Amino acid sequence: MNIIVDAMGGDHAPYEIVKGVIQAIKEFDTNVTLVGVADDVRKELAKYDYSKDRIKVVHAPEVIGMHDPATSSIRKKKNSSITVGVNLLKGSEKYDAFISAGNTGAVVCASTVILKMLPGVERPAIGLVIPTQKHLSFLIDVGANTDPKPQHLLHSALMANVYAKKILNIENPKIGLLNIGAEESKGTEFMKETHRLLTERVPNFDGNLEANEIFSGRCDCIICDGYVGNIVIKVAESVMESAGALIKREIKKSPLALWGAFLMKSRLLHIKKHADYTEYGGAPLLGVNGLVMISHGRSSAKAIKNAIRATVREVEDNLIENMIKEVG
Amino acid sequence: MNIIVDAMGGDHAPYEIVKGVIQAIKEFDTNVTLVGVADDVRKELAKYDYSKDRIKVVHAPEVIGMHDPATSSIRKKKNSSITVGVNLLKGSEKYDAFISAGNTGAVVCASTVILKMLPGVERPAIGLVIPTQKHLSFLIDVGANTDPKPQHLLHSALMANVYAKKILNIENPKIGLLNIGAEESKGTEFMKETHRLLTERVPNFDGNLEANEIFSGRCDCIICDGYVGNIVIKVAESVMESAGALIKREIKKSPLALWGAFLMKSRLLHIKKHADYTEYGGAPLLGVNGLVMISHGRSSAKAIKNAIRATVREVEDNLIENMIKEVG
Repeated sequence: MNIIVDAMGGDHAPYEIVKGVIQAIKEFDTNVTLVGVADDVRKELAKYDYSKDRIKVVHAPEVIGMHDPATSSIRKKKNSSITVGVNLLKGSEKYDAFISAGNTGAVVCASTVILKMLPGVERPAIGLVIPTQKHLSFLIDVGANTDPKPQHLLHSALMANVYAKKILNIENPKIGLLNIGAEESKGTEFMKETHRLLTERVPNFDGNLEANEIFSGRCDCIICDGYVGNIVIKVAESVMESAGALIKREIKKSPLALWGAFLMKSRLLHIKKHADYTEYGGAPLLGVNGLVMISHGRSSAKAIKNAIRATVREVEDNLIENMIKEVG
Repeated sequence: MNIIVDAMGGDHAPYEIVKGVIQAIKEFDTNVTLVGVADDVRKELAKYDYSKDRIKVVHAPEVIGMHDPATSSIRKKKNSSITVGVNLLKGSEKYDAFISAGNTGAVVCASTVILKMLPGVERPAIGLVIPTQKHLSFLIDVGANTDPKPQHLLHSALMANVYAKKILNIENPKIGLLNIGAEESKGTEFMKETHRLLTERVPNFDGNLEANEIFSGRCDCIICDGYVGNIVIKVAESVMESAGALIKREIKKSPLALWGAFLMKSRLLHIKKHADYTEYGGAPLLGVNGLVMISHGRSSAKAIKNAIRATVREVEDNLIENMIKEVG
């Protein structure tokens, strides 16, 4: 197995990326091809002791910044780590997947243009494994397609179904449509039409799901447009951060509470781990004809390592072949 | 001052509503007119000792259920507590405001049809005071208009500006547009057009705001469409609930952690109070020509009392007159 990793993606590249890759090849059965400014990448690699035949470096002189406009960057920077990386995946049987913590829009754009879409799928969608009160759920789309048509959400539902079954091992995943009311008559015209389509075409469709049920674990797959999905994950992140900040501030006001926090520490760390999205690897870009994984822009070495773990799983379980069989 | 309260609204009506009203007239300088099934309301009132001249009951034989379709219910049930209540507000100088914890869609519909819109405003919007890391912010719209046009968001921004200044006492409120990226080029065509309008017409517009900044307190007013706003508050509620459930479950696994929680109790209660939306009263329905306050469907007596407190404030500060002056 050989996974291509964008060495220049994310806020802490290439330092954290290379560190995560080194950890990953020690734990998982895959080789890695790092794409990026070769001198910088080799300088990072030189810090570690590892089997040299497991990691290869491919030079890509250009870098797309986290806030660069996606489409024009892909057009102008033909030698960016993202474009070179996706082209490697497209061009050869040798490679199995591409992972990037870089500019999400640019990764989506390059993957769509270079890899093309899976048969029967019109637009890409980004999925995300989220922790809930019960277990793990799959939220899709969290930001690839912000202005979808109802059939795009149908395709997301079909792809999520495959992902939940094959990768998350959920036998008969419950699929819910994120809406602002439980009744099928709720929401905009777009939502009503999507509800009709899902009812007709998805046997395990469980109806509308309200946003306050996302983290309850009622549904295994939660379908929404990329605009709303992006807001959902950012609000969740923000509430957790604000609650954490508030708790710390309050605890510091009282010595008793400080002692209390000390006694609770191991359980609190346990919760923190459960709520930490980096534990579950990256976010798969579904719908394109190739395995592409998007890692959080703030990715740490641990996040990259876990993204590689999740990707290894996708390669082993023939995710793309299964998608083509069940969705096309 | 005389505030009309829908006695039949919400999951715990009329019990919690009447209880909240009794508490309110003891604390605030307003009389209350309860609208609902008179016998049921009087039966509840009979449980309390209060000055009889402060509370009046107006009979409304019909009740609109929490999940009834909004528009047709308003058309068919002319004698519902919501319709009778809003008509009272419209019909007489004697009344100052209307509060309901009932079917939100029905309250929005009745208010729009009966009270009509403020000059210069095309659609209603529901605002919500939310606790942030810094202080309080105002999120608008949280569910009245799920399919708005850019000018509707402009009107929301102008109304939020007045609300933040007059009611929340923020001198020069920062106004942010909720979007999926900070740059003005981000988001759908709808978002870009809204961004242009706000830049042109709102002097204190602070640009786009990402969802992870909502609870940071960066902006005092956060503008979004009713579909997204509704999702934001439900996700926030859900994350807090799930985090709470998770913390309880983890703490129970360890006697040490249980002791820790006991020592932290007073600080945790303090946080709970800060994060509790019922502390800040109801959600004002802005844009209609009259003071209407929507209280949460799960409203407790405390929530109703606090909604009355917030409404008293709006009456005293001439919110409607100020809206007409600054928005029209």
